[in-house]
Formats: sequence, C-alpha cells, structure tokens
Amino acid sequence: MKSVKDTVLVVGSVAFDDLEMPSGVFNDVLGGAATYSSIAASLLTPIRLVGVVGDDFPEAHLEALRHRGVDTAGVERAKGKTFRWRGRYSEDLMSRETLDTQLNVFADFRPKIPAAYRASSFVLLGNIHPKLQLDVLTQVERPKLVIADTMNFWISGEAKALAEVLKKVDLLVINDEEARQLSGVHNLVKAAREIRARGPKQIIIKRGEYGALLFDDVGTFFVPGYPLEEVLDPTGAGDSFAGGLVGYLASHGDASPGALRRAMFFAASLASFCVEGIGPRRLLTAQRQDLRQRLDGFSQMVDYGGTLHFAD
Amino acid sequence: MKSVKDTVLVVGSVAFDDLEMPSGVFNDVLGGAATYSSIAASLLTPIRLVGVVGDDFPEAHLEALRHRGVDTAGVERAKGKTFRWRGRYSEDLMSRETLDTQLNVFADFRPKIPAAYRASSFVLLGNIHPKLQLDVLTQVERPKLVIADTMNFWISGEAKALAEVLKKVDLLVINDEEARQLSGVHNLVKAAREIRARGPKQIIIKRGEYGALLFDDVGTFFVPGYPLEEVLDPTGAGDSFAGGLVGYLASHGDASPGALRRAMFFAASLASFCVEGIGPRRLLTAQRQDLRQRLDGFSQMVDYGGTLHFAD
Repeated sequence: MKSVKDTVLVVGSVAFDDLEMPSGVFNDVLGGAATYSSIAASLLTPIRLVGVVGDDFPEAHLEALRHRGVDTAGVERAKGKTFRWRGRYSEDLMSRETLDTQLNVFADFRPKIPAAYRASSFVLLGNIHPKLQLDVLTQVERPKLVIADTMNFWISGEAKALAEVLKKVDLLVINDEEARQLSGVHNLVKAAREIRARGPKQIIIKRGEYGALLFDDVGTFFVPGYPLEEVLDPTGAGDSFAGGLVGYLASHGDASPGALRRAMFFAASLASFCVEGIGPRRLLTAQRQDLRQRLDGFSQMVDYGGTLHFAD
Repeated sequence: MKSVKDTVLVVGSVAFDDLEMPSGVFNDVLGGAATYSSIAASLLTPIRLVGVVGDDFPEAHLEALRHRGVDTAGVERAKGKTFRWRGRYSEDLMSRETLDTQLNVFADFRPKIPAAYRASSFVLLGNIHPKLQLDVLTQVERPKLVIADTMNFWISGEAKALAEVLKKVDLLVINDEEARQLSGVHNLVKAAREIRARGPKQIIIKRGEYGALLFDDVGTFFVPGYPLEEVLDPTGAGDSFAGGLVGYLASHGDASPGALRRAMFFAASLASFCVEGIGPRRLLTAQRQDLRQRLDGFSQMVDYGGTLHFAD
C-alpha cells in the first residue's frame, strides 16, 4: 500500500471454534470476533490487533494474520488454553445454539495497549466486557472514531458499564435483536433513536442476510446482504462487517457520513466472503480483485440509474 | 393527469377481511389482492379493475375506488356474498394464521374482460387460479407486459396449469417462501434462476419488511423495505407493491430494466403506506406529495454519493 492515512486498533476475542454445521463438523477452527474483524479490515489497511491466546494457539494462525497485514505484536500469549466456543447451526443456517463456551485465558483478559498502538486513530472495540472496553479507551489517545459492538450478555448483565461505553462511542454496530434488547423497543427506527440518545451519534443495525441499516444525523441508509448462491458458515459475518467498516474509513482517512455509507458496501462485501467458507477460510483467501467484483455487483444492485419521478 | 401512455388491467380478488390484529379486531375491512393493487397503482395511472363482489358489497367501496381513478366497470356484482377472509396476526406482525376463508361469489369467478379493456397494454394477474389467469390472457390483445402473482395453494395443487402461466408471464412477483416452494430450492439466487428458466424473464422476490429482490437479464437489483416507526397491518402490502410496479411502468410507458428498477421504489413506497393503516385506509388517503416524500427518503437510503473505490 502506498500510504496509510490512519491507523486501526482492533481489540477483542481470538478463539478456537468448534462448528457443527449442516455441511459437517469442523473442530479447532480459527475464530473470535477480533480475528474476523482484523482479517476483513486488513484487505483495506494495516491492522493492529490486541487480544489473548493460550499456549495451545498455533503460531501458524498468527503468521496467517501477519501475512494479511495484521500486526500481532499486541496479541498476548498467556499460560493456559485459548478461548473456545462450540456451536450448532440449524439446517437453514438461520439460527444457532451454543453448545459450550470455555473462556480459558480470555477470562482474565485485560487488554494492554502497546505504547506504539496508543495513537491509533480508528478504534474497533469488539464484543468484550464493557469495563474492558472502557479500559481500552483510557489507554488510547484521542481517536478520531470509536466503533463498538456488544451482546445480549452485557446488555442484560452489565447495563451500567455499558451505558458508560455508549457515552464514549461514535458508532455502535449491533444486530437487530441486540438493538431491541438494548433499547427495550421492538421497532428498529424507534430503537435506533433511543440508543442514539444515549451516546453514539451513529448506529448500524445488522440484520444478517437481509442487510444493515445506518441511522445518523443525515438520516437512514441501507445496504443489502449480498445474494449468494451458497452460504456455508455465518460465523464471524457481523465481525467481518465491522472490520470492513473500520478498514474502509481508516484507509480513506475519512469518517464523514458519505464515507460511512460507502464503507457499508465494503463491510457487506467482506461479510459475504466470510459466510462463503467455513470459519475465516474464504475471507483469508479473498483478494482485492475479488472485493472489486463484489463491489461492482453491489453497485449494480442499488444503482437505479436516474431520478425517481412521476410520469406526469 | 395530462396523458396516459399505457393502460393497466388488474384482475383478481375483491374481498372483505376480518382482521384480528394486536391493535384490535377489525371486521368488514375492504380487502382483496386486486383491491390493494388497484388502489396503489391508481396513484400513478388510471386502472381497469376486473373482479367480482356479492350483493352485500357497499357501493361506497366501489365509489372510493373510482374516486382514486379505478375504473370499476369490470367489477361484476353477483348474487350472494362477497369473498371473506378472517386472519389473526402475531404480536410482532411477522406471521399470520388464516382463521376462516369463505370464497362465496369468488368460487365461481370467471373473469370476463370487457371489450373496452382488451387492448390494455399492462396486465397484472392477481393471485387467482392459474387456469383463470390463462383464461384472462386469451381475452387480452398482445399486452406489452404481463405481471403475475401466485400462492402456495396453486403451487402445490395446480402445478401443471401454473407451469403454463409461467410460460406466458413476463414478470413474476412472489414472496420468498413461494419462490422456494415453486423452485424446490431454498437458496433464492438459485430459486430465481430455476423459475426464470421456466418462462418469466424477470422475477421479483418479496421479503416483506426486508425488501425485494429483482432478477433479470441485466443482473440482480434490490430495494429495501422502508423503515417505518409504526406498522399497523401488513395485509395487502405485497399486492400494493405489485400495483406500484405496474402503475409506474404503465405511467411511463416503459418496461425496460431501468424503469423496472425505478418502479421498485414506487412499489416499496406504496407498500409502506399500506402497512401504516388497517386495511387500505392509509393507502386510500396517500397523496402524490406523500409518495414524493417517501421516494426522497428512499433516495437518501440508497444514494452513497460516489464510487466505491479503494484508498490506494
């Protein structure tokens, strides 16, 4: 890459996933939200990753990340086992069930942002304990944009800490069920307004294969899910989406409403690669020309070539 | 309206609906697929409606349709009761259960296209028996575009007649479950390809609040559902969508791929009015300036203001 306008810090989980899919059972798959986000974003800009792995984590996985342009110097190697999640997906991949969660070294994860990372201008806070998200924000120096994710577990159990996080976040990226739970409102337009009143000026609500909605001061924006012929594994799609967002914005050094809208197409494209392979397999092999093709497909999907006017 | 380039014929059901909604029970609501399609389309162009009602059907309902620019001369008044459907919606309006269906005069409906309607250049075949759809097509003279809907009942019970319909239809407009059932394929990209191989060059797959996907020779196009703060009643939304399509295309005298893409925004806008009121209440009061506003909202939702390019 010729130049890097802005630097990206990604903090979150690195894991092993055991995936029981309709297409088979896949054990010891490279996983974790920060992993997916980093791989997706790294197609657009260099990434600094902060996370923790156990002594069972193959160096080859870290090497694969570095090969994509992910700086793994911030990935701590702790004594013990790596975070492991086991899940089973339904036949149509529309729902999943957690069979087992072993936090292992992730239970004691206290993100330490290396000195060289503290001036990162774009920060993506993966779905970790809101207190840890707050702690990360005390360690970084005036980032241009803070993006955060969260989940049902923190919404119900750590409402107070999460409320503090929301005050410090520019862009919240969550799914529709999380938006409903967080706001206490079923309707997503109202839910978005309620959540924005608590801090984040911008919120993106992800709806899986149906796409994602952005609500900001300019209005509402929508990007569809890319219509794929074959979906193998939705794991990490939302994290890849968030990675695509931060990667695009940082690579352009632009967090304007227009850039955020364009970023959503990169995000959706990267999420679409993610679901085409088991784990991050397809995401890891995606090249810029693949992304270019998918972006062209998206352009075709939304360009209506003219104005919307009445005949008379 | 200054000029009418093309004429529209809508054939299908006119009914009474009894609606058990989370917001209350509403009896004797004006309903029927052709009713919704006609009302929606009539905001864009004059409509010729062919259907049947019983002697219990208030003249005031027909007058309301005429007031919107719907020619009701093709609505036959038969001895007996009007078609009646009773349904109950779930709390989140995402599913519904049919409690009762009384076909009444609709059971013997044999569409007779008045001589004055036979040269209609745009034909919308509502969800009626495929044999009746075929019969309508023998009565019209070389229409420019034939749009058709169908449903699970005909897909499973009248496969042969439906296959004949598909050969004569230019644009099929069905929902995702119908597309899966008709094709026997779960994946919608594959389902669309399979169905297009059977006749209709163009297919639009409706996904309710999530939007609609068009597949044609140019590629794939997507229009989102309009994000509303309040949804009262989804009844007729899909029919309003189909009405918006045919109304736009006929008013512009243009059935090109570009026009079809723009038509989808008009269709989605009219569907969004439909769900804002019980029955066709909101749809009946919607004015062109309301539609203009919603179209502007749609433009804002999809216009990303530039090209999708890499930073370097």
